[in-house]
Amino acid sequence: MPFQTKITLILLQSIDGFIARHQNDDLDWGSSQDKKIFAERTKKIGLMICGSNTYLKMNPKSFEGRKTIVITSRPEEIDKHVDNVEFFTGSPKELVSKLSKDGITEAALVGGGKLNGAFLQEDLVDEIYLSLAPILFGTGVRGYGGNQLFNKFELISNEIISPSLILLHYRKI
Amino acid sequence: MPFQTKITLILLQSIDGFIARHQNDDLDWGSSQDKKIFAERTKKIGLMICGSNTYLKMNPKSFEGRKTIVITSRPEEIDKHVDNVEFFTGSPKELVSKLSKDGITEAALVGGGKLNGAFLQEDLVDEIYLSLAPILFGTGVRGYGGNQLFNKFELISNEIISPSLILLHYRKI
Repeated sequence: MPFQTKITLILLQSIDGFIARHQNDDLDWGSSQDKKIFAERTKKIGLMICGSNTYLKMNPKSFEGRKTIVITSRPEEIDKHVDNVEFFTGSPKELVSKLSKDGITEAALVGGGKLNGAFLQEDLVDEIYLSLAPILFGTGVRGYGGNQLFNKFELISNEIISPSLILLHYRKI
Repeated sequence: MPFQTKITLILLQSIDGFIARHQNDDLDWGSSQDKKIFAERTKKIGLMICGSNTYLKMNPKSFEGRKTIVITSRPEEIDKHVDNVEFFTGSPKELVSKLSKDGITEAALVGGGKLNGAFLQEDLVDEIYLSLAPILFGTGVRGYGGNQLFNKFELISNEIISPSLILLHYRKI
């Protein structure tokens, strides 16, 4: 098999699979410890991939110390002129193919839900770091889009990272 | 506070919060170990509460060794004439009030998703035994209905019960 960039999906979700209660959720139901782990892990991986809405919502500090690629069809329109941020117009498969050719070992997929779902539908997610918050929302922004999927994983490890928040590390099988 | 029957929600779900891929899902993505734990736990609690669709789908063996109350507005229509099964027409709150008056210590809420959601909306779920399967479906039957919720829990324990399937035990806070 030719070399392919490993894609690691990193997300914080409620028990019922929502990453936000609504589009303007400030995520105050998460934890500072989880944010710290997110920053450390994405810096270690060195490259984040996100969609345009996630990019627009992200704090400038979130782009420091690592590279970010924003998948969007409208780069000029959304550009916030942040250091270390590039734009890519194309499918998840096309991006992974480009990264693989460039010899990039690993990238962190950091949302939103629709982009996560698009990567999963093309079977491009190799690992998941899932922070599971002890809360139920019933409705909200889904972590994996709204299209049918069938992606199986194995649980590699689990760790309590702050009161009642458990980090589950999954690998594709 | 007057005595109130403890309601323990027991469910198997995908990572993204679905309890079935579709209405006729045979749940072959679950595990026999999880089924065994479900049977043991509901027998120990002694009483199961479910909705009419869940009742109609349940295997006759699932009713052995414990009592079951089916919440339904159409008992005559759906009755399968199984031993140890009763019907209740009314709201979750009305049922819990009745059970409390009858001195029932605990009952296991076993689905479906809409009934789980109705209990959660009325803040009647005290504990959750969540079996989290290492799989993503994207669409399907939601484990907690489709209405807005805001139920917070604390994680009491976690245990790997079969390859990659983790059991999370939550208590309401």
